Amino acid sequence: MYSRSPWGDLSFLSLVSFLLLLPAPSCHGGKVLVFPVDGSHWVNMKVLIEELHARGHTITVVRPSTSWYITEESPLYTSITIKEKESLYSFFEAFLQKHFKAQQEVVSTLKFFQLTMEFLSMIEEAHILACDTLARMFDDRKLMKSLQDAQYDMMLTDPAMAGGLLMAHYLKLPVVLNARWITSGEGHFAIAPSPLSYIPVPGSGFTDKMTFVQRVQNMLHYSIIVYQQRFMVGPSYDAICAKYFEGGCDIISLIQEADIWLMRSDFVFDFPRPTMPNVIYMGGFQCKPAQPLPPDLEEFVQSAGEHGVIVMSLGTLVNALPVDITDQIASVFAKLPQKVIWRHRGKRPSTLGNNTLLVDWMPQKDLLGHPQTRAFVAHGGTNGVQEAIYHGTPVLGIPLFFDQYDNLLRLQERGAAKILELAMFNGPNFQQALNQVLTHAPYRENMQRLSRLHRDQPIKPMDKALFWLEFVMRHKGASHLRTSANRMPWYSYHSVDVLLLLLAAGGGVLLFTGLLIRILWRTCRKNRNKTKQH
Amino acid sequence: MYSRSPWGDLSFLSLVSFLLLLPAPSCHGGKVLVFPVDGSHWVNMKVLIEELHARGHTITVVRPSTSWYITEESPLYTSITIKEKESLYSFFEAFLQKHFKAQQEVVSTLKFFQLTMEFLSMIEEAHILACDTLARMFDDRKLMKSLQDAQYDMMLTDPAMAGGLLMAHYLKLPVVLNARWITSGEGHFAIAPSPLSYIPVPGSGFTDKMTFVQRVQNMLHYSIIVYQQRFMVGPSYDAICAKYFEGGCDIISLIQEADIWLMRSDFVFDFPRPTMPNVIYMGGFQCKPAQPLPPDLEEFVQSAGEHGVIVMSLGTLVNALPVDITDQIASVFAKLPQKVIWRHRGKRPSTLGNNTLLVDWMPQKDLLGHPQTRAFVAHGGTNGVQEAIYHGTPVLGIPLFFDQYDNLLRLQERGAAKILELAMFNGPNFQQALNQVLTHAPYRENMQRLSRLHRDQPIKPMDKALFWLEFVMRHKGASHLRTSANRMPWYSYHSVDVLLLLLAAGGGVLLFTGLLIRILWRTCRKNRNKTKQH
Repeated sequence: MYSRSPWGDLSFLSLVSFLLLLPAPSCHGGKVLVFPVDGSHWVNMKVLIEELHARGHTITVVRPSTSWYITEESPLYTSITIKEKESLYSFFEAFLQKHFKAQQEVVSTLKFFQLTMEFLSMIEEAHILACDTLARMFDDRKLMKSLQDAQYDMMLTDPAMAGGLLMAHYLKLPVVLNARWITSGEGHFAIAPSPLSYIPVPGSGFTDKMTFVQRVQNMLHYSIIVYQQRFMVGPSYDAICAKYFEGGCDIISLIQEADIWLMRSDFVFDFPRPTMPNVIYMGGFQCKPAQPLPPDLEEFVQSAGEHGVIVMSLGTLVNALPVDITDQIASVFAKLPQKVIWRHRGKRPSTLGNNTLLVDWMPQKDLLGHPQTRAFVAHGGTNGVQEAIYHGTPVLGIPLFFDQYDNLLRLQERGAAKILELAMFNGPNFQQALNQVLTHAPYRENMQRLSRLHRDQPIKPMDKALFWLEFVMRHKGASHLRTSANRMPWYSYHSVDVLLLLLAAGGGVLLFTGLLIRILWRTCRKNRNKTKQH
Repeated sequence: MYSRSPWGDLSFLSLVSFLLLLPAPSCHGGKVLVFPVDGSHWVNMKVLIEELHARGHTITVVRPSTSWYITEESPLYTSITIKEKESLYSFFEAFLQKHFKAQQEVVSTLKFFQLTMEFLSMIEEAHILACDTLARMFDDRKLMKSLQDAQYDMMLTDPAMAGGLLMAHYLKLPVVLNARWITSGEGHFAIAPSPLSYIPVPGSGFTDKMTFVQRVQNMLHYSIIVYQQRFMVGPSYDAICAKYFEGGCDIISLIQEADIWLMRSDFVFDFPRPTMPNVIYMGGFQCKPAQPLPPDLEEFVQSAGEHGVIVMSLGTLVNALPVDITDQIASVFAKLPQKVIWRHRGKRPSTLGNNTLLVDWMPQKDLLGHPQTRAFVAHGGTNGVQEAIYHGTPVLGIPLFFDQYDNLLRLQERGAAKILELAMFNGPNFQQALNQVLTHAPYRENMQRLSRLHRDQPIKPMDKALFWLEFVMRHKGASHLRTSANRMPWYSYHSVDVLLLLLAAGGGVLLFTGLLIRILWRTCRKNRNKTKQH
């Protein structure tokens, strides 16, 4: 049976590293400037900040005045608050409502295109707002002077918004990215060769094995991202570059010049692909062994007996699904022999069974790591997916928006999850899908295989992340891991100029040979004619 | 001052991993089949075998009867000896003599091309011989049956010769490569995207910053390697594939399908470049802290006083340089205030000074790690270069053949070594170059910076290698780290088919629009004419 012990399936070597690397304190305290992105991105960043703080580093966090997650006061960091015109949250809320509705129907291509453009406009607005806030920072001479005087050792930022990169460029700080997404699309596409033939563009919903038609669609998806960066996101940052940097600057170059990329991913979760020497995979860095449950929850879980429990959560952003859907979910749950713990904030479904416990919040990690848990009904957010992998719990995924479908797809491809799209959602479908995940053994077996692979690393993802964060502080960067690629124009990078020259040379040789033959032939004929005339 | 303590400049975290991961014994003993390559490749492979043996694994080594390095008897492994028609060594000796002479003169392009073709022919002969030996193995039914019955857990092989890959394919074993070179060229080029615009082809003598002309030459160098694989090396293996494997097989595919690549390189030594998830960099895995010298050698070294010593060795393959060169070297040494330890096997130079000690063999690692050592005069073999990096000793390089120039170039680019080519060799040049390395502080500073970077890794290269070797045994491979790329034909991989379709579609739209305009125009004109006529 699968061992539930923390870091269960490790060799002695990794066990030693796990036990001993974890509490290692740093020798010296560095000064870290953090420029985070709000929302779920902050949840991840905070995990890193906690660990950096525990290792004796001093942390300063730049936050917008309207932040809905990043608190001004914290025992972990000092904060610098920048006045923001409007809360980013309003953008996201408006978008979520729209996107959420669209997900419930199978849309036409035209409608899909329209929705995509609306989505891109919303992102554009968010970047414009962020740049407005950034300009306020650059305009505040006193603040900028104090940042310069503070002599930070490093900038830690999330490149989904590029403010941190511009600030680091201004302050001449080495940069560590806590990344998966950049201003447009996924981080790898900016720094590593990414053949579109087997690397699905996030949002395409494809795997690393595509048909010809899918490869065409994948290319079109990629062109949308290029368009977005060039015409929708880029200009706001270009304006900042032009105004505050002599000789200008360019966001994509700044992204490419980051010292270390701490990537919230790994190749147990994601499809294998080309990578770069300065990309460190810390997927699942936030996962920890399950802690004991609160007594009442433990009692509920144990009361399930041999049938075990199902855990359901659709994340923190969505408060409630439409009532017709929650009623159907509740009535399916009511028929099960399992007990269900459901994180649910909306109206209490009328069809709720006695076996289902509605909760406002739950210790999700500890529940997923509980031996009684049989399945996880989830929306497919990165955190939940990584925790499911870590604990080896099979997933029934109901993707709502963003990267959730793509995340779940990666599990489904390995036979460790089943996806039920909202457009296909109804009671019987949900019941059938849930039954499959509960009773079809390979789902659990495959997820536990992923869990074993994920846990079998020479050092823990978090220790790897901390090592490289401190490496950058020790060596004032990691430029030796960065390629010379981004100094070149695209036609040189792709050797287009060289190939054109070689083609021209080849053509020249052919032409010369052709001319030579022609001249020889004519001379021959002339001579023959002369001979005939004589 | 630079700390000379073993693994000197480490954070506490890496120190713990260094101290504790090293002696960790493996929980279970695996059965490893090793198919090595002879010569200096074996020197590296043996280091891995020693460690695997120490961790309780059982090792079987396949060796040719004429092997000049791989002994039949060993406390580390059981050997299987295959009768070989002729010794590979004879090929190499003939080549070395020829190549060595060519290095002493600045050759014309034509001569260079001729030499390259001779070199490739020699390599071709070596592969033909290896395939002949391999066929003998496959023909030996009893041997093959015993190999199948032995149920090995893993094949460990060096892909410079592809015998091990074919054997693993036959026995259906997971494969770990101890690699830098494959049958033709460098390993990365077979598995990772390798833009020729900034990745110099080994043998080209270029860095990662190339001029346009160099990029053209680099492309031509690459085409030679493709030609070599396709027409000179490939056919011998294809014959084996056709004869012994139903449905045939293909060497490059087998190379691409290896589970783990243990690469004898890293990005302190090599230029940063795209890589793949299953490539593990173990550059310097053979390096160990310096041990005390034998008393007489220590006495000699200490007698140098504040001036310190120079260590010189041109590797194990070259017994002696031409007499005129060694005489010039000796007379330059004689004038120095330093003492010199020179590994030299030929005639004793007539100009030898009292400060120079000629030795047949020397504890090179311990000398390079000695605080008295000021410079290393070396030919640039991988082992020596890695040891120089590990110990932070600046290098005066005299490259002779193979990858030596390229290895030294990587140090020279970082300001940690100076290259003196044989074609430029004379007494005054040698003296000037040596003086520069001895007195120009940046050489030492840069080398010690490389040393600090090399030593500052989350786990030691050897431990990383061992972890992944055992990982493959634990999980019966590492297929989750392998891309889907090599299932595709080249035109799909490079999206040529998709781009052609999109171009055709774009062209179609243009054509259609053009036709439409033409028809409308004609209709317009006709109507106008009709109106005029009325």
